[in-house]
Amino acid sequence: MKEIFFVTGNKNKLKEVRKILGFEIKHTELEIREIQSMSLREIVEDKARKAFEKIRKPVIVEDTALYIKAWKNFPGPLIRWVMETMGVEEMCELLGKNRVAKAEACVAYYDGKRMKIFSGTVRGEIAKNPRGRKRFDWDRAFIPKGFERTFAEMTMEEKNRISHRSKAFLRLKEYLKSSRGP
Amino acid sequence: MKEIFFVTGNKNKLKEVRKILGFEIKHTELEIREIQSMSLREIVEDKARKAFEKIRKPVIVEDTALYIKAWKNFPGPLIRWVMETMGVEEMCELLGKNRVAKAEACVAYYDGKRMKIFSGTVRGEIAKNPRGRKRFDWDRAFIPKGFERTFAEMTMEEKNRISHRSKAFLRLKEYLKSSRGP
Repeated sequence: MKEIFFVTGNKNKLKEVRKILGFEIKHTELEIREIQSMSLREIVEDKARKAFEKIRKPVIVEDTALYIKAWKNFPGPLIRWVMETMGVEEMCELLGKNRVAKAEACVAYYDGKRMKIFSGTVRGEIAKNPRGRKRFDWDRAFIPKGFERTFAEMTMEEKNRISHRSKAFLRLKEYLKSSRGP
Repeated sequence: MKEIFFVTGNKNKLKEVRKILGFEIKHTELEIREIQSMSLREIVEDKARKAFEKIRKPVIVEDTALYIKAWKNFPGPLIRWVMETMGVEEMCELLGKNRVAKAEACVAYYDGKRMKIFSGTVRGEIAKNPRGRKRFDWDRAFIPKGFERTFAEMTMEEKNRISHRSKAFLRLKEYLKSSRGP
């Protein structure tokens, strides 16, 4: 496998992604400012360009969004800031009867020439109270459709069989296998 | 007065600011992507640098934030996205008993050498329902402390006597008067 750098500061994400891809991937932490947008695709594309500019090697970046139906798809990619301020408990509490939500992950691969973006989504709902291990903030709030448990109550293997992130990264894996590389 | 460009795509903001400053100011619209942050200061500083890079003339940029106490200061500078998705009615509805909020405006002036940032804040609360003219989205939701009316129910003159934006721009005006220019 060619040298590709997954740019993330999140150790849990790195661990999860290595499991999904099934091969070792290089890793680096870079300070990159994400742009404000409700389009996850636009955010990861911009992030991938900025990451490539810094290290001049093929990069992978990923970002996630949580679309809450009752809030007309807010906060989407801005979920991170809801978590950092309001927090997951308060978010669960605020929601009324309609708890329908959608999780999305977008992965961008960029090697200076080719920009490839892969998305994965999972429908589900927001739990009344956060439950499970504190791995990712809103994993404790998200119950994928057809399940009773939150992502945070599943083992990593269980989660990786169905998650938005694994869908996106499996698409990337497929692409990397079929492409001859940069 | 030296040539300074106020960078905004919002005609109502431009009108309001011209009234506050009391002199004509040049105006331009630029496509600038704001960074994700809960720090308004950081956002306007970044925006001012990007604006200056594009036009190479002294620029003024402004951005506002709405901090909702019950939501632990969310959404702050991300209020724009709450408005674009959830909307002002839904936001008013979501809030319970504690409706305390703070409005902030940050203005950045940058001439390629000097970066000056001026902030203005107003305490107040969020109305039960949006009221008044549709000038700015959340003007219809914000009741400044000591008043019964929302900003949107005031004339522009009334609002400009007390608003976060006028406080920030009057500080800028003071600076521009006292400085000898770039």
